[in-house]
Amino acid sequence: MITLSPIGTVKNTRTEIEDDNWGNVTSIIELDSKFDEEALYEIESFSHAEIIFYFHLADENKIETKSRHPRNNKDLPKVGIFAQRGKNRPNRIGSTIVKIMKRDGNQLHVQGLDAIDSTPILDIKPVMKEFLPREEIHQPEWASELMKNYWNTGE
Amino acid sequence: MITLSPIGTVKNTRTEIEDDNWGNVTSIIELDSKFDEEALYEIESFSHAEIIFYFHLADENKIETKSRHPRNNKDLPKVGIFAQRGKNRPNRIGSTIVKIMKRDGNQLHVQGLDAIDSTPILDIKPVMKEFLPREEIHQPEWASELMKNYWNTGE
Repeated sequence: MITLSPIGTVKNTRTEIEDDNWGNVTSIIELDSKFDEEALYEIESFSHAEIIFYFHLADENKIETKSRHPRNNKDLPKVGIFAQRGKNRPNRIGSTIVKIMKRDGNQLHVQGLDAIDSTPILDIKPVMKEFLPREEIHQPEWASELMKNYWNTGE
Repeated sequence: MITLSPIGTVKNTRTEIEDDNWGNVTSIIELDSKFDEEALYEIESFSHAEIIFYFHLADENKIETKSRHPRNNKDLPKVGIFAQRGKNRPNRIGSTIVKIMKRDGNQLHVQGLDAIDSTPILDIKPVMKEFLPREEIHQPEWASELMKNYWNTGE
């Protein structure tokens, strides 16, 4: 077993889990008090960061270890839990690339974090272009369909 | 505190930690026996996956919580631990996008995983283009310099 301790917490206005319309949500990641702002020093010289977080409200009894229809939508094909990104997954880890807006002391202001208020943060990493796919990427049709309204502004 | 359990293990030929030359390394991620191959079903319909792993050999006493020179190289600027991707970080989580070569039962064959043999895997997620940066990315000069030989083939 591996034991982790959150390094910070999400502050934003989204208090309920929602599948879509994350486009307008801005968030503050506030470092835990065991860190000081030095831990974030110079992160603002990157345009993007990768945020690793914990789906703390995902119900342990609902964790899928085999396969399911993404979002339990029967119109989508049944695929393995590791072939989808939903929250009801073993270890309940989320990972999202966000746009860095600014750093303010021990707070990092970001756009495009699909995590609700109070979500525990496990890690923050700068995005380097060398860590993005170096070959053309492709994905099945259902994934594009699923993501159609994900980053909508909800207006 | 958050307790996690590895979902699988890396098998490859790299047994020692090395900073560069990951280009030719192919790896097999073997799911733990508590999973069957259904958990990976259809992942091969994606070209890339994001692998979240645990730097199990990173020495707990060397974990940096403030700032340091990346790779302890004094020619590089001293930046916060969350503005770099090195292994000596709080929670010791690694995250890398890899190319999916094939799935074989409960084994996923990948290229471009910068983790040594026996590394515990915490999660596997499919890469969807909608989760890649949607704006132009930029990074400081030192990051490009650091990554110069990272994906070399070592030949």
